[in-house]
Amino acid sequence: MSSGKTIGVLTSGGDCAGLNAVIRAVVARAILGYGWRVLGIHQGTQGLLRRPVDFVPLDLKCADSAMARSAGTMLGTTNRGDPFAYPMPDGSRKDRSEEIIEGCRLLGLDALIGIGGDGSMAILRRLAQQGNIPFVGVPKTIDNDVGATETSIGYDTAVMVATEAIDRLQPTAASHDRVMILEVMGRDSGHIAMAAGIAGGADVILVPEIPYDIDVVAEHINSLRRNGRNFAIVVVAEAVRDKTGEHVRLHHALGGVTYGGIGHVLGDAIAQKTGAETRVTVLGHVQRGGQPTWDDRMTASAFGVHAVDLVAQGKFDRLVAWQHRRVVDVPLTAAFELTPLTDFDDTLVHTARGLGICLGDSKTE
Amino acid sequence: MSSGKTIGVLTSGGDCAGLNAVIRAVVARAILGYGWRVLGIHQGTQGLLRRPVDFVPLDLKCADSAMARSAGTMLGTTNRGDPFAYPMPDGSRKDRSEEIIEGCRLLGLDALIGIGGDGSMAILRRLAQQGNIPFVGVPKTIDNDVGATETSIGYDTAVMVATEAIDRLQPTAASHDRVMILEVMGRDSGHIAMAAGIAGGADVILVPEIPYDIDVVAEHINSLRRNGRNFAIVVVAEAVRDKTGEHVRLHHALGGVTYGGIGHVLGDAIAQKTGAETRVTVLGHVQRGGQPTWDDRMTASAFGVHAVDLVAQGKFDRLVAWQHRRVVDVPLTAAFELTPLTDFDDTLVHTARGLGICLGDSKTE
Amino acid sequence: MSSGKTIGVLTSGGDCAGLNAVIRAVVARAILGYGWRVLGIHQGTQGLLRRPVDFVPLDLKCADSAMARSAGTMLGTTNRGDPFAYPMPDGSRKDRSEEIIEGCRLLGLDALIGIGGDGSMAILRRLAQQGNIPFVGVPKTIDNDVGATETSIGYDTAVMVATEAIDRLQPTAASHDRVMILEVMGRDSGHIAMAAGIAGGADVILVPEIPYDIDVVAEHINSLRRNGRNFAIVVVAEAVRDKTGEHVRLHHALGGVTYGGIGHVLGDAIAQKTGAETRVTVLGHVQRGGQPTWDDRMTASAFGVHAVDLVAQGKFDRLVAWQHRRVVDVPLTAAFELTPLTDFDDTLVHTARGLGICLGDSKTE
Amino acid sequence: MSSGKTIGVLTSGGDCAGLNAVIRAVVARAILGYGWRVLGIHQGTQGLLRRPVDFVPLDLKCADSAMARSAGTMLGTTNRGDPFAYPMPDGSRKDRSEEIIEGCRLLGLDALIGIGGDGSMAILRRLAQQGNIPFVGVPKTIDNDVGATETSIGYDTAVMVATEAIDRLQPTAASHDRVMILEVMGRDSGHIAMAAGIAGGADVILVPEIPYDIDVVAEHINSLRRNGRNFAIVVVAEAVRDKTGEHVRLHHALGGVTYGGIGHVLGDAIAQKTGAETRVTVLGHVQRGGQPTWDDRMTASAFGVHAVDLVAQGKFDRLVAWQHRRVVDVPLTAAFELTPLTDFDDTLVHTARGLGICLGDSKTE
Repeated sequence: MSSGKTIGVLTSGGDCAGLNAVIRAVVARAILGYGWRVLGIHQGTQGLLRRPVDFVPLDLKCADSAMARSAGTMLGTTNRGDPFAYPMPDGSRKDRSEEIIEGCRLLGLDALIGIGGDGSMAILRRLAQQGNIPFVGVPKTIDNDVGATETSIGYDTAVMVATEAIDRLQPTAASHDRVMILEVMGRDSGHIAMAAGIAGGADVILVPEIPYDIDVVAEHINSLRRNGRNFAIVVVAEAVRDKTGEHVRLHHALGGVTYGGIGHVLGDAIAQKTGAETRVTVLGHVQRGGQPTWDDRMTASAFGVHAVDLVAQGKFDRLVAWQHRRVVDVPLTAAFELTPLTDFDDTLVHTARGLGICLGDSKTE
Repeated sequence: MSSGKTIGVLTSGGDCAGLNAVIRAVVARAILGYGWRVLGIHQGTQGLLRRPVDFVPLDLKCADSAMARSAGTMLGTTNRGDPFAYPMPDGSRKDRSEEIIEGCRLLGLDALIGIGGDGSMAILRRLAQQGNIPFVGVPKTIDNDVGATETSIGYDTAVMVATEAIDRLQPTAASHDRVMILEVMGRDSGHIAMAAGIAGGADVILVPEIPYDIDVVAEHINSLRRNGRNFAIVVVAEAVRDKTGEHVRLHHALGGVTYGGIGHVLGDAIAQKTGAETRVTVLGHVQRGGQPTWDDRMTASAFGVHAVDLVAQGKFDRLVAWQHRRVVDVPLTAAFELTPLTDFDDTLVHTARGLGICLGDSKTE
Repeated sequence: MSSGKTIGVLTSGGDCAGLNAVIRAVVARAILGYGWRVLGIHQGTQGLLRRPVDFVPLDLKCADSAMARSAGTMLGTTNRGDPFAYPMPDGSRKDRSEEIIEGCRLLGLDALIGIGGDGSMAILRRLAQQGNIPFVGVPKTIDNDVGATETSIGYDTAVMVATEAIDRLQPTAASHDRVMILEVMGRDSGHIAMAAGIAGGADVILVPEIPYDIDVVAEHINSLRRNGRNFAIVVVAEAVRDKTGEHVRLHHALGGVTYGGIGHVLGDAIAQKTGAETRVTVLGHVQRGGQPTWDDRMTASAFGVHAVDLVAQGKFDRLVAWQHRRVVDVPLTAAFELTPLTDFDDTLVHTARGLGICLGDSKTE
Repeated sequence: MSSGKTIGVLTSGGDCAGLNAVIRAVVARAILGYGWRVLGIHQGTQGLLRRPVDFVPLDLKCADSAMARSAGTMLGTTNRGDPFAYPMPDGSRKDRSEEIIEGCRLLGLDALIGIGGDGSMAILRRLAQQGNIPFVGVPKTIDNDVGATETSIGYDTAVMVATEAIDRLQPTAASHDRVMILEVMGRDSGHIAMAAGIAGGADVILVPEIPYDIDVVAEHINSLRRNGRNFAIVVVAEAVRDKTGEHVRLHHALGGVTYGGIGHVLGDAIAQKTGAETRVTVLGHVQRGGQPTWDDRMTASAFGVHAVDLVAQGKFDRLVAWQHRRVVDVPLTAAFELTPLTDFDDTLVHTARGLGICLGDSKTE
């Protein structure tokens, strides 16, 4: 047992279910397995910018089961800005990377474990290299588009919440002869929409990777109606685009942001083209805050234990990952290689088409 | 056992959880208890307008347990218009009440059981009186504002879904130092907002019965922040109004409807007045479509059995109701007496204030 | 605002969902509403027996929303013995009531709020009278048999958990042509069994209030099979008795305790009498530990606020209760008047029979 | 599109969540993608033994979303006996394989898709080879021990149900200073116990692959108590064995079966060795009947579509499988290679030890 080490842990980027389960596993493994000290850094890199450094020592009380099943992150997180071009009160940008590196030194960290998505990993890696900070990354993102790992923390729970919403929308759609549109998260990735749509029994699934043709969507809904189905369920990812770009332009003209809200434009268009009564639900942040599923908790536990083991073995600049029923580790740079759903050779896309679900294009299989 | 009777059952108005459990109980009681025939009428009074009349005979297969726990209504429902002033394709209005009454006669109905809210009950009662149709009403509404009954079908489930959403928003609010606004249903009644807000641990609950002062809301959030709380949860009913009426005007100017969407106006106002980062979730129709809770299923079962018993006893123009652990019946006119949350002598309001929750006015207790 | 008071709060008897929500409401109301101090006493009256007295000051951190939605009791609880005849290590019994009363004095309590069932209330009342301790009671019991209140803390959640189990057993029963027996809690009361059985769509519900005839049960299952139903769901309360007493004797001969386990005897008897394949599930303590439903949380909140208000008004020897959509208070002695399900004039029993559910006797309606 | 084919589908062995989602996907793909007929065979191979053959034509009504999210199997299933040595009423065994093969011919099946576990696959493969029936297998088992596929239908849901039970037992254990024992399913595999135990925060996890030493278990619980933890959670797989075999012997002496019930023996032993109050929950069939999780529904959908595609491609004697985010197919014989949890190089085992969980042996890492 190599004693005496002090390691830091932080969460960065958008929160999601399972972050506390990673923290818990890091604490348990570091203390019970190696006898180290663990410092939890508040608010991602923000805590390292503050003076005194904003942190909390984490003991075994943070490793109980209630922590494992809680949502959110006990350390807090922010998206508040790139430390290499940090937004200052006067509107200017400033490189504050050295302050963060100094924060690590002030804490006496022998290593840092960062839990984050692709954006956070890029920043954390640059900081680690610049400051010679031994660093290990743990992938979390509800978008599930980090290619090197079969699952990322938070994805399983987000799909669970989205699927549950479809389960609830379907009966009310059928009772009222309505077309229900559900907008889900996922940034530029259609994984949540596709997985929840298949599981929930959607009739139409629209994802960013496949620009949709509104006429194809409308015709599919009309054909369902001709065959006696009085309702339809449409699941749409937040960053979806129509082929002509008209919906995206309309959305922006209405003050819409890049992510979120286009479901309303789509609902209006479907109502206009099919004559159906439509209702739109933008599911929003409940997808991030759900109590983690067992799978997110279990993966988080394996990731946290393995990340500490990597520190013990002196293996840095690595990303923990899940592959073929096992936790493994890959070069940290793998975190930046995002994997969108694609139109070929992809199980989710092929399965959806195989079930007769319309993906907004005219392709069939 | 009085045999030979034929009774009709229909669902009317907005759908909700528990309707199928009522239908199931009506079918089971009528067939097993009395040996009657049960006809399910499609789409509320729409089914009685169509020729041939749009209905389905209901046998014991409709009485199995899967039916009891399913959401929606197997008979369909509509809000499509007052039959006494029915909207015609040419834009005119026409009294079509005699057609509906004739529909009942064509089916040979000895009695009609209608499941609906206050609006539907008013129409169904008028039809019943005009056509001498023996009628019994079963109250359903997620708004829970029918005064004569302690609970209406669908309310328990709607609050469950709304509470679950708060449970999910709280951890992500805390992780990101955010003020989360959750807009829930309830029309002119604050019952869902108040019950879910208390159960979910909201900091601010805004209901239609208590017009809010945005400055009081902002000051409450600021005082939480001064005391070290980095986040806040605001639950707002869809028909809420601010004291000055400015928010309502703004909402309408943005194309908002009477019910739904004002949460976004409120979120912007809170962001502006407190500097906090806000996120808005409009929960929408998932509140209607949830699998019914045990309480909604149990009440629905008791209502359905009692409604049939009333028919057997020849007691008509009655509304079944829940009072003091028992199913009872009251005059049907009681269905129209709505009970808003009030600011005095009301347990929910007093409990919320007692927990330190801000209700948007400056009253304290 | 009457300042300076110090109040104690404790939980006693079997735990259940919603206890923490009561404690949270007591803390919030006492501190925010009246400026009092609140002391949480550990392990029911055990904490008052220990020296130093085992307690924890409760501040507003105990009043956050996570507390409201958590299961169990943060103060702990025990059933470890009647303080008036306390079991000593040497096997003797000793009256230790004065030690408990002294414990209250050592803490300087101006009043005590006790959360418990009928057994705990009897003991706490006797202690309060003997020691002149101003006392208010809050009723909790998953059995829901305290007659003065329409609901007790923990009941709603226990029925939710039991109903969910039936929902899960039904599909596997149908898939395998099986008779599934589910044994639920409730001590001498059939409320959980009856409510969950109705909500879950049971075919047979056996409760302590109605001794069952195994031949009636077997014939009902056989008649279902003759009518094409390949499975059956039997819900049985833990303290159920058969008419001849043979099952109870058999259960005791096998080492069974008064509460729990008779489901296995019943399962064997049904298998023998019907030839059906049976499987037995004894649900056990998951019924106590569920995250509280919104209803349990809301009622708990109202009870906690009202209990503190009673202390402020100097109204003691009272039990808070829920009646007709309102929190009220009744004489504490009302806590001892238990209300079993009865065979006449009772909505649950009549509803079950109305749905065609067999209650184990030969009565029909 | 190769038209005119008729394919059969059946479910065999113990039921679980997700079977209907496979059937739905088979029906949708076969009809929509290829224009084939699909015949659902009742009760596994039993339906093929009966004359007339017991089957139902499956049309697109069986492919709706409600089917995808339902538990159980709409076709029924049995474990009633090896057709090569079928148990006859007189107690003898008879080879009835040719009757089953004839049943397939009577239906005019061009191919058969069988959904089952390792035992069912062995029998179905032998039948297929003997009768020259083109056959494709879909793996289902809550035990998740089919090595060739990363997940089998039903596993994700079973772990979800078991984890939920731990989440509910933990608060009541802590409230009452108890050791709670939860016995879960899994036959000779510890996957459910290990995954749920890690996710739920168990203190001790006992699996068949690692015989336990009761003294090690007792000492771990005692050490938790010495460190101030007043409760413990023990998760035990149904086929667990103690090192000396004494518990197994005791279990059998009490009439216990191979699978199920040993939790009670363990509970008594822990109570005796630690002095702690113990309570035992045998979770049972609720693990099979849960509404399928999104993951089970999605995998089931992919498996069903791919199985039909294999038929279209003339690829038989194959098992569909899930590997590295994709549906693939492997030789059917891979279904028989079971993968127990092992004590080395296994992520679940290593993660559990890394969290400080006792696995019943004295190994540490």
